[in-house]
Amino acid sequence: MNHQALAEAVEQDPVKDLYTDWSQILATTPDLTMRLFRSIFDEWHQPTKEPEDVTYAEATVGGVAGIWCRPVGADSSRVLLYTHGGGFAVGSASSHRKLAAHVAKALGVVAFVLDYRRAPEHPHPAGLEDAVSAFLALTEQGVAPEKITTIGDSAGGNLAVATALALKDRGKPLPGSVIAFSPWLDMENSGETLQTNDATDALITVSLLEGMIAGVLGEQTSPTAPLANPLYADFEGFPRLYVNAGGDESLLDNATRLAELAKAAGVDVTLSVVDGQQHAFPMNAGRTAAADDEIGRVAKWYLA
Amino acid sequence: MNHQALAEAVEQDPVKDLYTDWSQILATTPDLTMRLFRSIFDEWHQPTKEPEDVTYAEATVGGVAGIWCRPVGADSSRVLLYTHGGGFAVGSASSHRKLAAHVAKALGVVAFVLDYRRAPEHPHPAGLEDAVSAFLALTEQGVAPEKITTIGDSAGGNLAVATALALKDRGKPLPGSVIAFSPWLDMENSGETLQTNDATDALITVSLLEGMIAGVLGEQTSPTAPLANPLYADFEGFPRLYVNAGGDESLLDNATRLAELAKAAGVDVTLSVVDGQQHAFPMNAGRTAAADDEIGRVAKWYLA
Repeated sequence: MNHQALAEAVEQDPVKDLYTDWSQILATTPDLTMRLFRSIFDEWHQPTKEPEDVTYAEATVGGVAGIWCRPVGADSSRVLLYTHGGGFAVGSASSHRKLAAHVAKALGVVAFVLDYRRAPEHPHPAGLEDAVSAFLALTEQGVAPEKITTIGDSAGGNLAVATALALKDRGKPLPGSVIAFSPWLDMENSGETLQTNDATDALITVSLLEGMIAGVLGEQTSPTAPLANPLYADFEGFPRLYVNAGGDESLLDNATRLAELAKAAGVDVTLSVVDGQQHAFPMNAGRTAAADDEIGRVAKWYLA
Repeated sequence: MNHQALAEAVEQDPVKDLYTDWSQILATTPDLTMRLFRSIFDEWHQPTKEPEDVTYAEATVGGVAGIWCRPVGADSSRVLLYTHGGGFAVGSASSHRKLAAHVAKALGVVAFVLDYRRAPEHPHPAGLEDAVSAFLALTEQGVAPEKITTIGDSAGGNLAVATALALKDRGKPLPGSVIAFSPWLDMENSGETLQTNDATDALITVSLLEGMIAGVLGEQTSPTAPLANPLYADFEGFPRLYVNAGGDESLLDNATRLAELAKAAGVDVTLSVVDGQQHAFPMNAGRTAAADDEIGRVAKWYLA
């Protein structure tokens, strides 16, 4: 095996490389502005390969701007309502367009990626209300609720779960399924894996989360409010749920605690923890087998 | 007319807004790293609307990575070889994907947006050599040279022009046409509009250009080398050329001097200067009439 072949045999991890780079910027730029923080997190799309045979269109759904991702030949009656990650404060439809399109393509459906209102300018429940508005607008436009999947990663995984919880609270029809990639739910920073996976997680730290929590909760919201922290929610009657996490990430036990809670309430839950992977590792779609295999499992689950 | 309607009646200029924001960051962050400089310039896609009915694919052409933009129904035998702007140092295929796709769609062709090697790590002629390699590889793959258009904005407009000049120097077949949006050619900072349009240009300053010039020329290249500064080149036998500029931009006389030079050498030149517009204003594609009208004129010229 020559050097080239040897290098290729080692699994690359572009998401980890990007997180390592961001962490270095965060560590060496203590006065980094929110403006520049958003700029670097808009690079989150870089680890994701351009998915082929997908077209895009900007739109407003329920008053919320976003990007439609339409794989060629997809069933447009089935919709992924995608809420992006970024601690409720950073990230965008642009940073997650490619990931949403990869998932939509694997599932044979279309996706709408929301540019929901972000903290700290718009604390909880602004982002959640935007996701609920978009969901209700889709149903008013004739999309069957059960053909909608709320889906997101990290803080967007929280929103995907909380959207279904908020609809349930209001007695509205629920989405047919919910997908949460590396959901960030724990607004108390109480998880054990914050410590036990601290050495392997390339991005998430307690202090980073503390800043994000302060921003999204603002002055009004308790860290145990069920729609801000679904680890305090009642999951009875919740839709079928796919939740994953990387085995190396500090937020791992957000996923495992969610899965346990929902299972205890009788929800049909599938939990996927992938060893050696970072936070929101499906962002490596098109680049790593770990990401592509995971998206393949999501498709198998969705189509089952 | 209510406030809403009044606000909408005033032409928006998202590119100008973004440049104003960048300029404020540059002014208030004197120690901005190249890493963060690249991060903010990757936002250059934000003023551009997602063009509908276009698919994308990553590829390597002649050893150079990039993104294919394929409008549905486009003639794939006709190719725009797009070199992005960003002072040879910043910008990317990602920052210019949407603009290249808008132009390709208007012209009914496909585009390949190059991630050429950037300065200062790779000074002149690295980026140019990448563009030449991609051009030659396309022809080896069976694309007729006359069906290729080299096209770019700002520093990428320089590369689009210099690619044709380099091919001419080497006795290779030339592209059928060249398009330069707000080309930046003058590596001596000698243009009068650097002063006369200083008050209206929202981004370009002499000191910003000085840094970019030092990066791209490095230790080896003279600011009057014809392939680095095409204002010193011989345009005899050069392909038909479309060149534009915004009337408010500091680099306006790069475009006008290029048009004069090429015209004097007998080249078929079309010059379009649009009053009130900023540097690389076609980046407002899908958002402003000024950008869309300009791209319409390019299409009319291309198809004539």
